Order: sequence, then structure tokens, then C-alpha cells
Amino acid sequence: MIAERAAFASDASHLSTFAQCLKDVRNLGANDIYNWYLASSGSNAVRTSTNFGDGTTADGSKHAVTTQPPDLKINLIYPCTDKHIAKYSSQGVRIVNETPEIYRDHIRPYMQKNRDEGRLNWVFNIIEGRTEQEDVIFRKHSNNNASQDDDQGFLVLPDLNWDRKTISSLHLLGLVDRKDIWSVRDLRRKHIPWLKDMRQKLVDATTQLYPQIEEDQLKLYVHYQPTYYHFHIHVVHVMLEAGATQAVGKALSLENVIGQLEGMDGEEAGMADVSLTYSVGEASDLWLQIFEPLKKERLKGTSDGNEI
Amino acid sequence: MIAERAAFASDASHLSTFAQCLKDVRNLGANDIYNWYLASSGSNAVRTSTNFGDGTTADGSKHAVTTQPPDLKINLIYPCTDKHIAKYSSQGVRIVNETPEIYRDHIRPYMQKNRDEGRLNWVFNIIEGRTEQEDVIFRKHSNNNASQDDDQGFLVLPDLNWDRKTISSLHLLGLVDRKDIWSVRDLRRKHIPWLKDMRQKLVDATTQLYPQIEEDQLKLYVHYQPTYYHFHIHVVHVMLEAGATQAVGKALSLENVIGQLEGMDGEEAGMADVSLTYSVGEASDLWLQIFEPLKKERLKGTSDGNEI
Repeated sequence: MIAERAAFASDASHLSTFAQCLKDVRNLGANDIYNWYLASSGSNAVRTSTNFGDGTTADGSKHAVTTQPPDLKINLIYPCTDKHIAKYSSQGVRIVNETPEIYRDHIRPYMQKNRDEGRLNWVFNIIEGRTEQEDVIFRKHSNNNASQDDDQGFLVLPDLNWDRKTISSLHLLGLVDRKDIWSVRDLRRKHIPWLKDMRQKLVDATTQLYPQIEEDQLKLYVHYQPTYYHFHIHVVHVMLEAGATQAVGKALSLENVIGQLEGMDGEEAGMADVSLTYSVGEASDLWLQIFEPLKKERLKGTSDGNEI
Repeated sequence: MIAERAAFASDASHLSTFAQCLKDVRNLGANDIYNWYLASSGSNAVRTSTNFGDGTTADGSKHAVTTQPPDLKINLIYPCTDKHIAKYSSQGVRIVNETPEIYRDHIRPYMQKNRDEGRLNWVFNIIEGRTEQEDVIFRKHSNNNASQDDDQGFLVLPDLNWDRKTISSLHLLGLVDRKDIWSVRDLRRKHIPWLKDMRQKLVDATTQLYPQIEEDQLKLYVHYQPTYYHFHIHVVHVMLEAGATQAVGKALSLENVIGQLEGMDGEEAGMADVSLTYSVGEASDLWLQIFEPLKKERLKGTSDGNEI
């Protein structure tokens, strides 16, 4: 017998009562507007005799109850913004090719604006010890005397999507302390020793915290584009189901990025010098503000050319 | 609010009662020993008043019941064989780091042996026009006078896993005619013009065959390790659900590989010169014959070192 979770019903009548029907909602944690829970979609207790609702059966004895494990993982973002809704709404996807020139002229300024708007405050709050310290499961402290280039500090948090107990779906995030690495684009050949050292420390910390896991059962990757522009590394158990978050066009193996840097010529050469192809949602700012206009320009250029 | 199905509990006490606790099992179909169902893990009905078990409440009226949709998909194979059990048993997976040296000394000879055993005959039969010609949906013929290095011939087949009609899950394979590119490891900087030309022809052929698809709705990637050692490119619709076949540690974006080659120094430099990290099954020949022995040697080396 093979049991799988079924697809969610998506009819309006079910969805309109979905939240009210949740049972045994158990909070797992919270940060700012983000809250996460385990819950059950049905009645969690399977009763094996007639139930009078007060814990007694028809003959007056306590009834037998088998508790079913929770079958739902709930993330609540409250209050949420239009951006949150756009992010989680189903949308068309486009493949874009970000050349070094597009990165320099369009993406880098977009990242800068994004950072200036204070979207990284939650990250800095954690790094600087103001919030969510109870979630930090490992910390390598920065040397206060170190220049930014020598800052080897980083910390490890559980990913929002991990239930924090199922080892085979372990998902951690390593966030660097230094603020000059916004994304994989900022990695250069000179960073290889730092990256290799951090990779090893991440792996060592994880296998020490979770001794059931061996080093070669961990997969490390980065996203491009990432959700936020402060360099962070995903650490997952190799058995974690690989969905969109690990897909080609979104995820880059950390080791392969290091390998790519090793193949480059010169210490300052880096990931800003290569083309990166990835997928973006049609509702994303990246598509609407950058790649769709570029595509229209290109198509216009082509049709102008044809008219000559 | 974002709801996801939670991970299954896997403790013995839960699993031993799992089948008995299924509710509202509904058969969807059957074929020989294969049967499939929808079912609910908890009590499917959420009762909104005290339940006497006979559909009446304390005041004798019919109680209000909200029926929850089934949350489980069940496949039953009965009677099943050892082969079925092996197929569905979880196989451990390991992450391996294939350095240029391991590639040269272990993997390349393994590929050679694999090719010598005639495992590619089915590929050569297609390329040379002997079998499966009805499946070839596009062909760019080789120039017969071309040397192997100038052979730009390739053909396109539907992937075995594609139903050949659902556009949003389109999955094609591009197989090159030339036999000197066994895998991504054989790609060098000098191959960039050939790769770019083939990429464009693959995309053009696909969008001409399936005019519902636009160029930027196609994702192109290669596997490392691939299933067979003759260079081939996967072409999929960007909406195809990304599972293990597209995951980091298995798939490499074709464009990113081209980008990686562009960053290299010298026309002969190539993918054989970098480290590649990927996942292998513990039951695979790659693990059993190459990486597990290498790991044991390494561990032995470490413990020998400790004894000194």
C-alpha cells in the first residue's frame, strides 16, 4: 500500500470554510508578520466507540481515542501585502537570460533600491541579535576587528518551510554576517577560501546538531534570483522532496558555483561576469519592471528592422 | 494563509495503525493487481454539535456535518512481489563531489566501459535511422562531408515521460549526431558557437512544432550524471512540475553551462576541468563501484592518520 497526500480541493465552497474547519492548530513559531503552525484538516481523533462528546461512552467508561498526526502545515502572514499575495498566487513563468550587462544596468540598481526600501530589516534584526534569537541554532561570531572582507561570521536558522523535526526533510538557512554580498552575483574567485570554509562549517554544524545525518546526505544550494538580497545558503537533507525551490532555473549548487569560480581567470573575476538564465513569475517585479520591457524593446527592434 | 500538506509521521506505532484508521475509502479504479483510492486520514466529518453516533444530537435533531475532502491518495498493489517492494522502498541518496581527478581516473573509464557494453545501441539505432524513426519529430541532418568536430546534426524526440499532448508538461530530448560528446564533461570553450546554434535551433523547432509555446517558456537543461553517455539536452515547458529530474544535484541549465564555459580561459578549457557535485542513489553502480569505495578509502586514511 502506497499512501500519498491528495491534491487540495480548490472549489470556492471548500475554500470558504477551510480556515474554520482546522482542528488542533498548534503554533510552531512567529517572526513579525510571519506565523507558522501544524494543524489537522479533519477531526484529529478517530473514536473507536460511540462518543457522547464528554469523553465517556454509552456504558460510562472512557472511550478509546487514537490521535492522528497533523496533516497540514500552515503559514500565516498577517497582515500581508499585495506583494505577498502576488508571490503565492499561481502565475505564468518566463525564462530570462540575465547577461552581465543586464545585471549591471538593470538588476544591480533594482537590488539596491530593494535594499534601500528596508526590506532587509528582518535579516539585520536577526544578524544583529535583536529578534528571533531563539531560532538561531548555530552561530559563528564575526571577529569584531575584522574588515568586511575578512568577516567570516554567519548564523543558521531553520527554513520557514521545515517542520523542525522531520530529519529527512531538514531545511536550514545559513545567513552570512557581512553585508557586501547581496547574492551569488557578488561572489568572486577571491572568495573561494571563505566559501569553502563556510561550507565546511555549515556541514559540520548541521551534522553535529543532527547526528542522524551524514555529511554526504546534505545538499547545499543558493537561489538566483533569491527572495531577498542578502547572501544566504540553503542546506537540505538529500531526501527532501525536490520541488520548484531546488529546480534548475532557480537553484545553483553551492559546490558547482565554487567549481565555476575555480575555472575563472583572475582573483577579481566572478559571477557578475557570466550570463545566468533563470525563471521569473509574470507577476514579479523582475518581470514587470525589467525583463518584460526589455523583451518588448527587443521585439520592437526586430520589427523596426523588418520595416527598413 | 498558506496551507500545505504536512509530512507523514513515520513512527512504527502510527504506521501500524495507519491502514485501520483510514476513513471514507473510495475506489477510483483497478487494473489487475493495481488498485487506487481516495481516503481520509482523520474522521472526515467535522461535527458541529454533540454526536450520538447515530446522526442525531442530544435534542433529537439531525446534527450539522461539514464533509472534508479526502486528504489521501492510496495505491494498493495486491498481491505484490519483492520487485514492487524494492521499487517503492526508499533508496538512500548520497551527495558526491566529482573532482577533475575523480572524473579522469574513475568516471571516464566507467563511461567507456558502459559504452563498450553496447548500452548505447538504441541511441545509435535512432541516430542512424534504423529504429524509432516515427518518434523523431525534428531532424537537422549532418553534413556528410563534415569532420566530427563540425558535425552539427541532431534530432528531437519526445521524452518517455511526456504524454505527447499536454503542452504545459512538454518534455522533449535533443540528441546530437556526433559521438565524441559523451556528457557535459566533454564540452569545451571552443564548443560555444556550436552549442548556441543548437540551442537556438532546438528552441525554434519546438516553437514551430508547438506554436502555443513562446521561446521564453522553454527550459533547457542537461543531466549530470545522465542516464546514458551520449550528449542529449532536455527541453521542457516552464510549467512542467519540477521534480527530481530538474533538481540541483542532477540538472544543469544549458545556458548556465554555456555561461560557465564563456568564463573560462582558453579554447580547450572545459567542463572536464571543474568539480561537479551531484546526487547518486545508494543502489547505483556509480555509488557502489566508485564513490562508496572512495569514501571508505578516505575514512580509512583519516583513521590511519589518527592512529599515528
